[in-house]
Amino acid sequence: MRVTTADVFEAMQDDLERVERRLVEAARIDYPIVSTMVENIVTTGGKRLRPLLLLLSARAFSYDQERAITAAAGVELLHTASLVHDDSIDRAALRRGQPTLNTEFGSGAVILIGDFLFAQSAILAAATNNPRVVGIFAAALGAICDGQLRETLDAHRTDQTRESYEQRIYGKTASLFAAAAEMGAVVGGATEEQIATMKGFGGDIGMAFQIVDDILDLREGTQVLGKPAGNDLRQGVITLPTMLFAANPAVSDETRATMHAIVAGDETDDEVINALLTQIRASGAIEEAERIAADYSASARRRLTAIEDASVRGHLEEIVDLTLIRSF
Amino acid sequence: MRVTTADVFEAMQDDLERVERRLVEAARIDYPIVSTMVENIVTTGGKRLRPLLLLLSARAFSYDQERAITAAAGVELLHTASLVHDDSIDRAALRRGQPTLNTEFGSGAVILIGDFLFAQSAILAAATNNPRVVGIFAAALGAICDGQLRETLDAHRTDQTRESYEQRIYGKTASLFAAAAEMGAVVGGATEEQIATMKGFGGDIGMAFQIVDDILDLREGTQVLGKPAGNDLRQGVITLPTMLFAANPAVSDETRATMHAIVAGDETDDEVINALLTQIRASGAIEEAERIAADYSASARRRLTAIEDASVRGHLEEIVDLTLIRSF
Repeated sequence: MRVTTADVFEAMQDDLERVERRLVEAARIDYPIVSTMVENIVTTGGKRLRPLLLLLSARAFSYDQERAITAAAGVELLHTASLVHDDSIDRAALRRGQPTLNTEFGSGAVILIGDFLFAQSAILAAATNNPRVVGIFAAALGAICDGQLRETLDAHRTDQTRESYEQRIYGKTASLFAAAAEMGAVVGGATEEQIATMKGFGGDIGMAFQIVDDILDLREGTQVLGKPAGNDLRQGVITLPTMLFAANPAVSDETRATMHAIVAGDETDDEVINALLTQIRASGAIEEAERIAADYSASARRRLTAIEDASVRGHLEEIVDLTLIRSF
Repeated sequence: MRVTTADVFEAMQDDLERVERRLVEAARIDYPIVSTMVENIVTTGGKRLRPLLLLLSARAFSYDQERAITAAAGVELLHTASLVHDDSIDRAALRRGQPTLNTEFGSGAVILIGDFLFAQSAILAAATNNPRVVGIFAAALGAICDGQLRETLDAHRTDQTRESYEQRIYGKTASLFAAAAEMGAVVGGATEEQIATMKGFGGDIGMAFQIVDDILDLREGTQVLGKPAGNDLRQGVITLPTMLFAANPAVSDETRATMHAIVAGDETDDEVINALLTQIRASGAIEEAERIAADYSASARRRLTAIEDASVRGHLEEIVDLTLIRSF
């Protein structure tokens, strides 16, 4: 029997509240203005999918509540730190409809606040006192930076391949989902095989999550995301739906040339960009990308057959659904 | 008998070469242009004082060469990452006379390259497989970010106190010297008392190091440092010599008002700033700051009486000298 999508939050409420408290403690700085802003950023976060994944992954085995909560807070804070630097790089004014640090502080302070949050996340990881957890954490931090660096360095290049796209989104997004699930299994005392399964599970839902994110960027406008539709294209970043569109033989050479000019940054006219977005949306490329995301989810779900505890398995299936069905 | 200052580098040459190799490996990215720039930044570093301190601190006890070298590379890379973000924040074009990443890449890429180096340093720390070393490393990262954030948030404030100055430079500089010495002692299997002594030793020389740095900023010009003299003042940062100068009753209220206008960013005329620098240099404030730095060095030297190995003690004394007598 499949549970409804609210169940996992209810079932994990106590653990999640403890994670929240750890996050607030870790974000504390004795500079009043910064402190309030940083606390806002840390607490008005998303759905806490990464901590949930870690906690459930630990619960699937013998668990170790204290360590799992510490590691879960560390993973969420690492994610938050990386968003702060992302927003600083993009000079974004909004994130999830809320003003970013960029609206209050100079770019130097924002970089340092991001660094401060990275440091706090490393302190939480170290507090698990488990060398393997720390190693997974550090490797995930490395993978995220590598993925984001690839995105920045490949921006405005028209020769981006499907392989480089997959490598890049695994790094920038899926690696932390994989690490969260892996850390949970390690903390839960799982076997090597189970740890590998959970890591694969996290990686799969992370890939699905990022593909859905890339689809939303093309489909939704300012209302929902707080940024214009096609933001990736405008920044010269080619994502899966755009790649699938460009690979479609029905697309004219002229349209492809327009797309390349937008990616290269040579064409910045909003009307031209919006016309291309309309064409991409009508081309079936988004539906094809959705199918690819669904394939990753299906792979994730198959891995769950190894989990004996039916309740935990049900909750992990909910996480799979949550990564697919999102409106932000 | 005191050894001459070249001895420590000769004595530790093998260890230092192994640290260099670890640094080059850690900085490797499979993006040709970035890779070359990052390797340059990592290898054309300073005197490797922090790794030396860590290695000698380990050698003072039972040592553990492999772990000490890994930790030493981690500490140096953490320092490098923090310099990359510093230069990005200041948009500095030169560091130690060499072009910074800012001359080649956009600010977004530079932030991410700094993050990448932070990640690599965390991976090295994790590779020591010693939870206590990892904990010291993470706490030092937190202290550095806290110190740099304080410097940025306090910039242009004219009410900076001696206490806030000491807290800030301990965070941004001395904490990593303290951590390096502490990690070395931990890796070397020292007793708790010995670990505390070495941490205090590192903290003392770190304080001396930063005070000397602040003196050099006021005293030396573009030729030596690759940036204009009085760079701190121009950025609204009040350092020890300037504080001592302002506290001198012989200084007129008018001069003090000019200094406050420069710090607040209201007075940016180069002639006015240079005239103030000349006054500060002639006031005896720099000599007073040098005496305070020398006090920290003397405190560091006293702590060394606890080290039994005369050769290691001699080399640690050289490190004390190196932090005081610098021309860059």
